[in-house]
Formats: sequence, C-alpha cells, structure tokens
Amino acid sequence: MTFRVGLLGHGTVGAAFHQLLDERADAIEAVTGMRPEISGVLTRSRGDFDDILDRSDLVVELIGGIDPARDYILRAMAAGRHVVSANKQVLSQQGEELYDAARAAGVQLRFEAAVGGVVPVIRVIHETLAAAHIDRVHGIVNGTTNFILSEMARTGASYDDALAQAQELGFAEADPTEDVTGKDAAAKMAIIARLAFGAAVHLDDVPYEGIDNLTADDIAYAKELGLSLKLIGAAERIDSGLAVRVYPAFLYAGHPLASVNGSFNAVTIESPAITEITLSGPGAGGPQTASAVLGDVISAMIPPPTLPPPPVEIPLLTDVESAFYLYLEVADRPGVLAQVAEILGLQGVSIKSVVQRGLGDDARLVMVMHPVLESRFQAAVEMLSGLDFVRARPRVIRVIEETFEVSG
Amino acid sequence: MTFRVGLLGHGTVGAAFHQLLDERADAIEAVTGMRPEISGVLTRSRGDFDDILDRSDLVVELIGGIDPARDYILRAMAAGRHVVSANKQVLSQQGEELYDAARAAGVQLRFEAAVGGVVPVIRVIHETLAAAHIDRVHGIVNGTTNFILSEMARTGASYDDALAQAQELGFAEADPTEDVTGKDAAAKMAIIARLAFGAAVHLDDVPYEGIDNLTADDIAYAKELGLSLKLIGAAERIDSGLAVRVYPAFLYAGHPLASVNGSFNAVTIESPAITEITLSGPGAGGPQTASAVLGDVISAMIPPPTLPPPPVEIPLLTDVESAFYLYLEVADRPGVLAQVAEILGLQGVSIKSVVQRGLGDDARLVMVMHPVLESRFQAAVEMLSGLDFVRARPRVIRVIEETFEVSG
Repeated sequence: MTFRVGLLGHGTVGAAFHQLLDERADAIEAVTGMRPEISGVLTRSRGDFDDILDRSDLVVELIGGIDPARDYILRAMAAGRHVVSANKQVLSQQGEELYDAARAAGVQLRFEAAVGGVVPVIRVIHETLAAAHIDRVHGIVNGTTNFILSEMARTGASYDDALAQAQELGFAEADPTEDVTGKDAAAKMAIIARLAFGAAVHLDDVPYEGIDNLTADDIAYAKELGLSLKLIGAAERIDSGLAVRVYPAFLYAGHPLASVNGSFNAVTIESPAITEITLSGPGAGGPQTASAVLGDVISAMIPPPTLPPPPVEIPLLTDVESAFYLYLEVADRPGVLAQVAEILGLQGVSIKSVVQRGLGDDARLVMVMHPVLESRFQAAVEMLSGLDFVRARPRVIRVIEETFEVSG
Repeated sequence: MTFRVGLLGHGTVGAAFHQLLDERADAIEAVTGMRPEISGVLTRSRGDFDDILDRSDLVVELIGGIDPARDYILRAMAAGRHVVSANKQVLSQQGEELYDAARAAGVQLRFEAAVGGVVPVIRVIHETLAAAHIDRVHGIVNGTTNFILSEMARTGASYDDALAQAQELGFAEADPTEDVTGKDAAAKMAIIARLAFGAAVHLDDVPYEGIDNLTADDIAYAKELGLSLKLIGAAERIDSGLAVRVYPAFLYAGHPLASVNGSFNAVTIESPAITEITLSGPGAGGPQTASAVLGDVISAMIPPPTLPPPPVEIPLLTDVESAFYLYLEVADRPGVLAQVAEILGLQGVSIKSVVQRGLGDDARLVMVMHPVLESRFQAAVEMLSGLDFVRARPRVIRVIEETFEVSG
C-alpha cells in the first residue's frame, strides 16, 4: 500500500526531504506498513497545487513565508489532508487560524521542523510533557547567531569578522538581518510558548534584541566572570503572567545551555515534576530539517508505534576499536618510554599524547592512544605488565573522541 | 468520562505517581477529554490483582524485578489492558516475550521511565527517529555513578569517599552494587539498543564494567589531558554488526556528554541525517520517574495531540526580573565605584561581582548584578549615563543564573 506525499517547495530542504524519503522508503514501510512516495512537487516554475492535492494523502509545505503558504495549508486541510510544515513565519503569525482549521477538518498539522532544527522540542513539550505544568523554557533557537557568538568567544574576533566567517562557511545568509536581529528566534519562541503555556502568542507579542551590538570586549570580560554569551529565547511564567522575549544573555558555566557551541540549537524545559530536560542538536541545515519533516510524516502515517517490530538478526560484537588511556608506574630510568612505545607499536598501537612525571626512583607515564582494536591493545598491555621496570598493574580506561566538530 | 488506572506498587515512585496524577487530573482532562483516576493499588500487604485488573483501563507496573511483575504485565495485556512500566529488569531480560504478547493482544506497552530518568530517549528514538538509520547511541544512563565521578573530579575525593557522600545525600543506595558495577546501565542499554537497532538484545549480551576500580589519580591525570570521566553505555553499528557495552571512559571536552555532571543522565543519538541529538535531565528520583510514567499514560489515553488546544488567556509581561551585566567606561579617580554603587543601591540594584581595570586616565568597571526588575535597572543606568565621570554609554546584557544545582 502506498502513502502519497505532495511536496510544496523544492529548495534546499525540499530536495533533501525528497532524497531522504526515497532512501528510507523501505524502512518506513517496515515500520508503518505503508510505502511513502512523492506524488507531486510544486515549485515556482512547475506543478499545479490542485492537481497535487488530488493525488496526495498528506501535504508537506516547505515554501516558507505567509503567501501563498498559508492559503495552500488551509486548502489542503479543508480537503481533509494532513499537513507537515517547517514554516515558522506562518505558524508564529497565523497559528491560531491554522490550528482552528486543522481542528475543524479533523486532520493533523505537524511542525517539528519549524523550531530547533533536529531538536525534537515540539514533540517533547506536546507529548512527553502533555499536561505537565511548565514553568520556563530557555532556548538557543538560532544556529547562525550561536555560531557567531561561539567564534567571538573562541577566537576573540569582532562581531563583523565572525559574521563574515559565518557567511563564508554557509552558517549565515548574505542578508543575515532576520537572524542577527533576533526576529527568527522570536518567531520560534512564539510557537514554543503557545505549546508550552497554552496562551495565544503572536510574533508581534515577543520583544526581541539581537547580537549586532555586542563587542569582543563584552565576551572577554564575561569570561573573567565565568560567563558565556548566548542569544536566548525565554518563555516563562511569572506570577500569573507570561513573559516571552529574545535577548543576548550571559549564562553561568553550570547552565545546561552554556556549553552549546557552534551552529547547534538547544532548549531547556523546566517543570516542577521533572526539574528540567535539555535537548540539543544541529540547528539549521537541509538534511537535518528534512529529517525532522520526515519524523512528522511518519507520525502522521500511523499512531506512534508503541512497540519495537519483531527483532532482526544483527551479530553482536565485543572486540571493537577504541581509543585508550594507559597509566603506567615505571622505574625512572633512561629508555623506558622508548621501550613502552616499541611494544605498543608492535601491536599497532599509536600514542596520541603523553604526560610523564618523576617520583623519586619511580615515574608515572600517562598516555592516550589513537583508536585500536581492543584485543590488540590488551595484548600490548599484557606484554608491558611483564616488563621488569613496570612497577604495578597498568591501568586502562577507554577514551571517547569527539565525533563531530561543533564549532567550525 | 473517567479513565481508570490500576497501580501496581506504591513505593517511592508509585506514591509520587499517585500524587502527580491527582494533581494533574484537571489538565489531563483538558488535553485528552478523559479524567484519569487511580482505580486500585496493589502492594505487598493490600489489594488483589484480579480485582484491580477488572476495574482498570490501563495498568501501571512499578513493582520492579522479574517476579511477579512479568506475570502481572502478561496477564494485564492478555486481558486487553494497556501497560505502562518502569521496569528495566523485566524489559532487558524478558522484553521479546512482552513485546510479542503486546502485539498479539493489540495493546500498548510503554516504558519511557525504565531508561534515562526524565530524559525522553525512548520516545525520541521510537517516534522522532522512527525509520532513521541510527549509527550510535552513547549514554550516561546511571545517575548514581555520574554523581560519584562528578564528585571525584570536583573535589579530588577517593572513590570510597565519593560513594559515602552519594549514600549520605540519597544518590546511592545502601547496597550500590547494581549501580557501581554497571549492571543497571547494561540493562538500560539493552533496552535502548533493541529500539535503536531492531536487534534482540538481552541483558546477558551486554558486557559491563563499573567504576569501583577507578582512582582519583586517573581523574587528575585525565584533567591534564583535557578529558572527563563518565560511565558510558555505548551501542553502535560496526560494519554489519552491533556492539553494546558499558564501561568507564574518558570524553574529550567537546563531546556533548562531557559536561553532564551530578546525578544527571544524558543520551547522544547519532544518525547521518541528523548528525546527532543529545537529551539530558535528572536521572533517578521519585517525582521525575513518576512524570515519565504519566507522560506514557497520557500517550496511551489518546493518539498524541498534534495540535495545541484552543488558547487560554494569560497576560503577556514585558517588565520582569533579571540579573544584569553592566560595563562602564569611567574616569579613573577615587570615589567612582562608591558613587556607582550608591546610584545602583537607590534603585534597589545589588552588585554580585565586580572587575575593575585602569587604562591610563580611564578605567573599565564590569559588574554582574543580582536579579532586579528591568525597569528599575534601566532607571539606574539612565542616572549613571548622566554622570560626568562616565565616558561612554553604559553597556547592558542580561545574565541567566543557574536554576538548579547539578552537582551536590
């Protein structure tokens, strides 16, 4: 059985979504029992909306902006189609009209991709925390500004230089106004606040300040005070009211958002029952946004699977590659390090960094190795244990390397 | 309309769940259209299972262990009841039997609370990433061991002293064996790996090492190398196989799990389409686990709401309390700081920390304030701007304080 997806918009995200859906069609069929396929694509130069609507079970809107996206979403829902959208502009400005229309038509309107990149903040607020009393949501919801601020902190660069670098690396657009003024973050916080607190919040209700007036000096002084600078979207209950705002703010080092660097997004949700949950991941990016859209499409296809499907056969491995820390107590005499390195080398173990420290007749040798098959490393350790200058059983702990460069 | 919840077990989590469900009954009714109520409670000394089953639409199992929990879950599902469980032992050892039985009975079996405390790792893997190709899951899934390792790193304490402190503060049990040997984490990783990779993974398939052999020396040397020590659960695809293990490991500072301290849990999920998502929050704790259970109960009551309910009225505030950073360029002469402090004091603004630095005739005064109403702080800044010794427009940035103490 086929599940027909009409696709409105075929830019960076639209093309990435189209490709991802094709790649994952087998897996989606295994999970849902239905095989998704793109039944039509609407761009400025090709396709007809009514024709695509006729041939779709669900419509994905990736055009952005208010017109004609709003009209297409309303017409699709009125025709009984579920809609998945990544459109923060229309949701933050015409959200109530769209929610009412979806309710009236009895269809689903899902929009995880409108907020937070791959970070599943909509689902967690809406499902995990359904009916929870949420006190506050703090978010880094714009990857461009977080990249710029991270670079200023890391290199001491000025705002202008960091912006230029972000543009060069594709983290900022040629016209970065919506991002750096905080307007993009304000739209996202309006959508989040609507879900977290139930109040109708329009983009116009959210005062916002950007990062374009910040200086390298602010960041340098803040470092001395143990603070890091982020563009923060905040939505919080205060007495019986609600404050929703976007502004640059310093965070103390212990705050869960303080260590979120580069173009990453993150959201911390606070509620008495849970204390807090923090979600983080890459912000914008075609494949990332496309993945969030696909998650929504699958959820719309079926009620969420509450059970894993029957198991598949995959061999379970125990001897795998890992980086290692090695701590040796050795006699402090010439040639010891050379001998240790030679034995490691015989097993194909290569040293990444060493700290050596003398302690009277003994020395401590602390090393981190590059990744190597565990059995080979253990064989090297066995050989080292037998050497006369090794004073105690070597200590071995695995090391996990950074898998992704968070800042450019 | 009433939705009847039968509760098996009334220990710390059970009692917290009972209380939370009562507190949130109105909000749940608003979201789902049904009012949940506890229809019966089974403990060792009171209640009858068959009687509770007769009077329940859904059964919450918070007994833990294999027997009699497994039997109760199977009988409840065979009788057509949805089941929500926080039982990592039975799911990691009898999971396939339970999943098969749920599939055969056509009921939901939900178990977010069995893994990761309040961190919604099950929902995100199962729904957000349904049909995604997951490469690797790295997790800190045991709060006791993370608390102990955080204390050792923070204070230089020995393992024994840190364990004693964890026990004193209630972060470790009198018999901490399951936690410190890594067995608890292994059970959780077996459950996670089953969902993330589709392979049947039993607790017995997961080799585990604990933290009971680690020394303060290891942590001290690792700090010099830029590493932090965590008990890591890892599940990853390697070629066409799967490796699922638990071991202490060093993480480089840029890894998203490196900054997770205290009794917090966190899980990083890597997939080509999304790069990675990290979820973090408090690990164990009665109210936290109860909240995860309640999220599952609400999800079982209805298909997830894909829309916010009609909006409620909440006043939107703009003048709220905040902490501030204030940067002043002033003439470098006696009495300046005193005058600044006096003006701030007049508006009720209190200084938390100050850095002052001379620059020839001028000085820079950088301060962080305690929280104060924004309008009062802005009034003080206006007054400061008019002073003859203030050389440039003061610079003001908000400061977000840590809201929760992550480590004890």
